[in-house]
Amino acid sequence: MLAVSEPDSNSSTLEPPATAPVRDLRRVPIHADHWYPLAWSKEVKRGRTLGVHFAGDPIVLARSESGTVFALEDRCAHRQVPLHAGVVDGESIRCGYHGWTYDCTGRCIDVPYLGRERLPNGVRSYPCREMYGLIFVFPGDAALAEERPLPDLPSVEDKAYKTRRFGREVKCHYSFMHENLMDMNHQFLHRRQMGQMRARSLGRRRGEDWVEVDYTFARMEGKQPVGEALVFGASKKDGDQDHKDVMTVRTGYPYQTLRILSSDGTLVMDLWIVYVPLDAAQRTNRTFGLLSIRRPGIPFALDLAWPLLVWFTERIFKEDRWIVEQEQEAHDKQGADWNHEVFPVINELRDLLRNCGGRTVIPIHKAGGTA
Amino acid sequence: MLAVSEPDSNSSTLEPPATAPVRDLRRVPIHADHWYPLAWSKEVKRGRTLGVHFAGDPIVLARSESGTVFALEDRCAHRQVPLHAGVVDGESIRCGYHGWTYDCTGRCIDVPYLGRERLPNGVRSYPCREMYGLIFVFPGDAALAEERPLPDLPSVEDKAYKTRRFGREVKCHYSFMHENLMDMNHQFLHRRQMGQMRARSLGRRRGEDWVEVDYTFARMEGKQPVGEALVFGASKKDGDQDHKDVMTVRTGYPYQTLRILSSDGTLVMDLWIVYVPLDAAQRTNRTFGLLSIRRPGIPFALDLAWPLLVWFTERIFKEDRWIVEQEQEAHDKQGADWNHEVFPVINELRDLLRNCGGRTVIPIHKAGGTA
Amino acid sequence: MLAVSEPDSNSSTLEPPATAPVRDLRRVPIHADHWYPLAWSKEVKRGRTLGVHFAGDPIVLARSESGTVFALEDRCAHRQVPLHAGVVDGESIRCGYHGWTYDCTGRCIDVPYLGRERLPNGVRSYPCREMYGLIFVFPGDAALAEERPLPDLPSVEDKAYKTRRFGREVKCHYSFMHENLMDMNHQFLHRRQMGQMRARSLGRRRGEDWVEVDYTFARMEGKQPVGEALVFGASKKDGDQDHKDVMTVRTGYPYQTLRILSSDGTLVMDLWIVYVPLDAAQRTNRTFGLLSIRRPGIPFALDLAWPLLVWFTERIFKEDRWIVEQEQEAHDKQGADWNHEVFPVINELRDLLRNCGGRTVIPIHKAGGTA
Repeated sequence: MLAVSEPDSNSSTLEPPATAPVRDLRRVPIHADHWYPLAWSKEVKRGRTLGVHFAGDPIVLARSESGTVFALEDRCAHRQVPLHAGVVDGESIRCGYHGWTYDCTGRCIDVPYLGRERLPNGVRSYPCREMYGLIFVFPGDAALAEERPLPDLPSVEDKAYKTRRFGREVKCHYSFMHENLMDMNHQFLHRRQMGQMRARSLGRRRGEDWVEVDYTFARMEGKQPVGEALVFGASKKDGDQDHKDVMTVRTGYPYQTLRILSSDGTLVMDLWIVYVPLDAAQRTNRTFGLLSIRRPGIPFALDLAWPLLVWFTERIFKEDRWIVEQEQEAHDKQGADWNHEVFPVINELRDLLRNCGGRTVIPIHKAGGTA
Repeated sequence: MLAVSEPDSNSSTLEPPATAPVRDLRRVPIHADHWYPLAWSKEVKRGRTLGVHFAGDPIVLARSESGTVFALEDRCAHRQVPLHAGVVDGESIRCGYHGWTYDCTGRCIDVPYLGRERLPNGVRSYPCREMYGLIFVFPGDAALAEERPLPDLPSVEDKAYKTRRFGREVKCHYSFMHENLMDMNHQFLHRRQMGQMRARSLGRRRGEDWVEVDYTFARMEGKQPVGEALVFGASKKDGDQDHKDVMTVRTGYPYQTLRILSSDGTLVMDLWIVYVPLDAAQRTNRTFGLLSIRRPGIPFALDLAWPLLVWFTERIFKEDRWIVEQEQEAHDKQGADWNHEVFPVINELRDLLRNCGGRTVIPIHKAGGTA
Repeated sequence: MLAVSEPDSNSSTLEPPATAPVRDLRRVPIHADHWYPLAWSKEVKRGRTLGVHFAGDPIVLARSESGTVFALEDRCAHRQVPLHAGVVDGESIRCGYHGWTYDCTGRCIDVPYLGRERLPNGVRSYPCREMYGLIFVFPGDAALAEERPLPDLPSVEDKAYKTRRFGREVKCHYSFMHENLMDMNHQFLHRRQMGQMRARSLGRRRGEDWVEVDYTFARMEGKQPVGEALVFGASKKDGDQDHKDVMTVRTGYPYQTLRILSSDGTLVMDLWIVYVPLDAAQRTNRTFGLLSIRRPGIPFALDLAWPLLVWFTERIFKEDRWIVEQEQEAHDKQGADWNHEVFPVINELRDLLRNCGGRTVIPIHKAGGTA
């Protein structure tokens, strides 16, 4: 582990921007050998299917009559039409065109007009687990699925916390999302929601497949908005440096977390989030986030305030979504990564995402012509 | 002619799928040296034009003041703007921009600001015939137009039949349409309209530019829907094998027919259909179908039932359109034909469409990026 | 200067079309070393920004608190997001993401979390002038800005004239616009607005960076419409050749003018117009036009008639826009310039636009596939 103990905010420790990287980060595919949520549990009803995508691969999620979810390649071996348009039949899926039928391992178990002894090959199946209200799929080498950990999210299951599930499609490479959340100097973007806040980074740490950074915040002017107080807790007096909350943002590949510890060591906010590429070019991701807020002493106070919190976080998320989509558009137009990063932890993060990502290069093209 | 007398349904006669074809069928252009309908007669009013396309070639159909339809290249020789935006002037078309005028052979007969002795070259004209309420054009080598037959459709002109004209744009290569209609094992797709039907193929025959297959049908469970009884006739008692209707589906390049003969040899249903590629990539076709149903003994019974028949056939056609568009999407994404066909007549049909098609290869590209 | 004194209309002086040009005119980029209007003054409010484009280059126009307009490259040096989404702060722009700040010369003057002694490089600035209600930018080599003239438009500032400002995005290469206005033989396009008019060209003249042509008009049949009379003046008696108004259309690269002089030498109509490419492929232009009409003797007559004049010119402009977009579509489909020009002044104009345009070739692709 690389520990960087000195604070790196302000001018004192800022390093020059990294030299031109060998690989364009925006063309590094996400590594498939991890567990990725592809849907919320409630999206896949009993006896129904749902067609989803991972980095361009079509995958059908099906919940059998017995309630188990399984995941297959979403195209019939026969004429390549999507199996999600078919029919769940007991513990199997029947293609909606000619009725070819596959069990939960992808084996073809029936072609209505063909003898059972001559059945063709089936389709690929994917390891699949259901946890925390999410359906996780392992899109990479299935032999590695058992040894790779699923995320451990104790706050989601702890009654001391209330959890909000949120997310949406965002039209950008997943790397922009990681950088957005980790670089807390972007508070200016949220000036309408947050007022004039300034982040101060306390230091960063890095391991082989993770990087994290600590922050405190100071209000430059104005009053703390109510929505923010709900999420982050009411702010302490200015200058009261020793009693500040500490926010830690961590990318533990391929997931990201943001935790706020109050000055007495209580975990007051615990966010887990992941950005799942949908298309082959990985220019669109579906975000799955679980935001757990510690319940205050007063019963039901958090439940009463919940609609305001939902509104506040949606507004923040909308601004972030908008700006990262602007970044992606700029990259598409420029055909290369022209970013000029001056904040060390972000350069570390970019390096990490490059190292942990897939080994291939996403074949994209410079967008031509339109303004 | 190749006669295959043994029935080829069920496992007994199923052959292994054809080995990898030399040409991707979905990139075989339709052969231009045939008569293709490009519009319904009623779409081209007297003194008006209609812009249509054949495989990317823009063609203007114009009905002169005298009522004759003619077909020209749909762009002015001057500045390439579409002639269909111009004005029919007697037996000629005047371009809507600078008024260059072409007669029905495509010859330029007037440029308002130029002497008649210096008129420029004109535009291409196409052989054109009007029959059965359709406007047929010969888009290929005009020298072959006379010797190539127009379709012969006696049922359409026979008062013993009532004919429905239908069609719509379908976003797929024409070959998917031929395969869809010829493979009657796809009844599962129409399970909501048709109930549980099972096709049994009785045998197939093939000539140089045609292939056909006979079917009978058995109901697996449930009652016959009213719509189906109207189209196919009320079904006979189960097991009454000798009295079954026989359906023959035939591709006689480039057209397709589906005929049902009752057990007494009466032609009860007679469908003629063709799929005309619109764009250069031949990823969209316009379907023109003429469905003739024999009138029953009771006068006006068919006319009364007609709206139900329209509804029924529209529903079936909508399901077919949806599934072939799914097939095209899969092909676009995969960039190649991954079909794994197990039904012999369809492999014969694919071979036929390859052999009868144009000699070039449609230059398409693997669809990049989007999920 | 090349003077061509003989009239070149009708067949007598028509030359053969130019031989195949070395460069496809539709792929000649407009020359950047001129002043181009990128917005109307009223579009850029005090303390606000406006994002515009010149030939694919994003440019932000900002009006500072003091009212001065300046123009910068519209992307932050940091993460390439558009500066027009930022905030005007006094005489500078602050990026909306992390707050990087640029002055009116493009220099980075603040990064909130970085010491002032370590500020990164800024962004490009563009010479910018505000005249006639337009914001002009010099997108080319800034060193040439001073020596290149801004347009001189006395009628716009003369109270004897009333000026209409108009324009819109048109989806075509700027060259189609120049050809459309200069070739008055296209009156047939406006037959619904103008009746049967015939232009007669009196002669053309050419210099190094300009070409112009004179016309008179004769009505072939019908009555003069009211809208036209307003714009061009009431027509004289037929055959009264000596008293005809003379229209002169001139391309003085990169601008275009159309002036009508009455028989007594009064300038009755004075149009200045320019077509600014927006996208890198220069397939879309934004048109800025200033149409000045001389006020008649009766006070307020022109003001009363103004709505009719607006309606009339909008109709004409809509027809022109439609036809040039058809021309562009044809070019995109054909991938080359198939125009077959027979009118000498247009061949001169095309030659001029080729010679005065940028030296590079716009990299475009033949549109594939769609009908």
